[in-house]
Amino acid sequence: MITKPTLLIDEHRCRLNIKKMADKARRNDIEFRPHFKTHQSHQIGAWFREEGVTKITVSSVEMAMYFAADGWKDITIAFPVNILEIENINKLAKTVNLNLLVESVEIVQLLEEKLTTAANVFVKINIGNNRAGIEPHNTAFISNLLFEISRCDTLIFKGFLGHAGNSYACRGKDEIAKIHLDSTTKMTKLKQEFIKQYPDIILSVGDTPTCSVMENFTMVDEIRPGVFIFNDLMQLQIGACTIDQLGIAMACPVVAIHKEKDELIIYGGSIHFASDSMLNNGQQVSFGAVVENNTSGWGKIVEDVYIKKLSQEHGIIKATPEFISKVKIGDILKIIPVHACTAANLFDTYVTLKGEKIGRFRF
Amino acid sequence: MITKPTLLIDEHRCRLNIKKMADKARRNDIEFRPHFKTHQSHQIGAWFREEGVTKITVSSVEMAMYFAADGWKDITIAFPVNILEIENINKLAKTVNLNLLVESVEIVQLLEEKLTTAANVFVKINIGNNRAGIEPHNTAFISNLLFEISRCDTLIFKGFLGHAGNSYACRGKDEIAKIHLDSTTKMTKLKQEFIKQYPDIILSVGDTPTCSVMENFTMVDEIRPGVFIFNDLMQLQIGACTIDQLGIAMACPVVAIHKEKDELIIYGGSIHFASDSMLNNGQQVSFGAVVENNTSGWGKIVEDVYIKKLSQEHGIIKATPEFISKVKIGDILKIIPVHACTAANLFDTYVTLKGEKIGRFRF
Repeated sequence: MITKPTLLIDEHRCRLNIKKMADKARRNDIEFRPHFKTHQSHQIGAWFREEGVTKITVSSVEMAMYFAADGWKDITIAFPVNILEIENINKLAKTVNLNLLVESVEIVQLLEEKLTTAANVFVKINIGNNRAGIEPHNTAFISNLLFEISRCDTLIFKGFLGHAGNSYACRGKDEIAKIHLDSTTKMTKLKQEFIKQYPDIILSVGDTPTCSVMENFTMVDEIRPGVFIFNDLMQLQIGACTIDQLGIAMACPVVAIHKEKDELIIYGGSIHFASDSMLNNGQQVSFGAVVENNTSGWGKIVEDVYIKKLSQEHGIIKATPEFISKVKIGDILKIIPVHACTAANLFDTYVTLKGEKIGRFRF
Repeated sequence: MITKPTLLIDEHRCRLNIKKMADKARRNDIEFRPHFKTHQSHQIGAWFREEGVTKITVSSVEMAMYFAADGWKDITIAFPVNILEIENINKLAKTVNLNLLVESVEIVQLLEEKLTTAANVFVKINIGNNRAGIEPHNTAFISNLLFEISRCDTLIFKGFLGHAGNSYACRGKDEIAKIHLDSTTKMTKLKQEFIKQYPDIILSVGDTPTCSVMENFTMVDEIRPGVFIFNDLMQLQIGACTIDQLGIAMACPVVAIHKEKDELIIYGGSIHFASDSMLNNGQQVSFGAVVENNTSGWGKIVEDVYIKKLSQEHGIIKATPEFISKVKIGDILKIIPVHACTAANLFDTYVTLKGEKIGRFRF
């Protein structure tokens, strides 16, 4: 029985989301290296194994260790090497096929000095997200960096890695297609530039919007989407998923009803949803959308019923009089978070629709 | 040695912050019932005990149980009663002096039906925050609610509780003074209205800005501030604390340097800072401010060096060329979060300036 904010997971939907993405990678004859930062769970990792996945992406050294402990043998840490964690990086390099991310000569030199076992490296390219990585036109810099890598006995250059996170600003397939074309063009040009010297260059991309929406990935070698397993309000608004692909929802008790303000107070705050917000279709700031509460899970989004404000434990739901008239104190509302990764990260347990618990590591 | 994002605590500063607030309560001859949601730690709770604190505030039933297990005997759950947790509420009512929060006849009736041991109740009044609570002018409603409470054998009416969270929009003492006058006037009027029937009415207030800045609290009976122990960028901007009252900072490794963009990449993202942002003094959106890194802690805020963007594990620091010229990969930056409560909530450990670990419950 649900008595407090609970992270619900629809296993069936998540498995379908995994299968769909695995099938797409198979059709394109490329590697599917899903990002496990979204779920951070050994048990959910097993659902990927059942779809034939053997290579994974994580976003921290700790997360790599957590999944290595569960038998994953090929792990990319898609985050610039944090040299302060070299001790654990060395431990990982001994036990798994470890792929690191570099973007400067300085970090290559630090690895040369401190890495005790050989590891693969990908060079991070900024293909549009403007967060980390080298500008793709900066081929002189890249060439020099590859030379530095080649001089280092413990580093094996594998290829270029990019994340077109700018796809999160897209709305609809046409805009996503433009980002896909732009980012993959940048990557393939780089490959052409360096293929003579390095014939086995791997191109790795992988934001969820392009991976979910586009069909043709033959120009790259690997995709690394993460949030597609759960999806969320953001992916729905981008057009990267449909309502019936929403794999998690938060169950929150109603603790007060304010009919005069068309508001409900739920037990469910920023420590459960994170503070991510977005403008909903009615252009109101929303921290989550209430969905129809089916006994077997959740259904459509209820129009005009959403979280308008969060404090630490409180959520204020703006609702319609019609919706409020049906709600009692002690009812459970099911709510889709804006960003599945940060919301799920606040819990150490998922609860399935059958009431089973699935453990999750919290970093 | 710090190798990954770490929540640092300056014990000396925190103890001074506690002492200052405890002294203020003593001078006003009122109860100091600090909100423990900010620190959520048995060990830090002991610092309050040493200042004579015996009564505390929490924001969930789980948090009440966590502190009851550490010997706290007088606990207010400053959150509308979540009737779905009645089993644990009944357990708590048997072992501690439990104060619950109600704001509707419906919840009083549910408690009458389900509460097995007597508990105190406060009636939640909306004194400006517009989140939860009854409008203070709605005396007919309040009168009826008090009547319903008096009919219930297990409920003991204690007083009115309000949270002037609208003080967070204030900048400077004059604006805070207005909120203080407004909220305490609303509360004292209510007391006058009902004192004949209920001669022992307690007035409980307690947002950090008014409690930190104002001196006169003789018109109320109890204050419940929380975040004052740590303070944060928000409290600093409000004018509720000074630089040397900032009790926590996040230590984050530098993983990449982008001189051409005046940016650094740190290992430290929304899973460490939460996603709270604010406009800094230069009117830029900031998710945290870099402070001078003293060996013994941290000093002033470094002008124009702040977190401009967070993703799950990445933080992008916007910096000055001068600052960047002194930074190396692998350096540790110390950063003040925008909101101490939500940031601290993402960790299970504090690290003191001596390197000692202090445990923390994560709900």
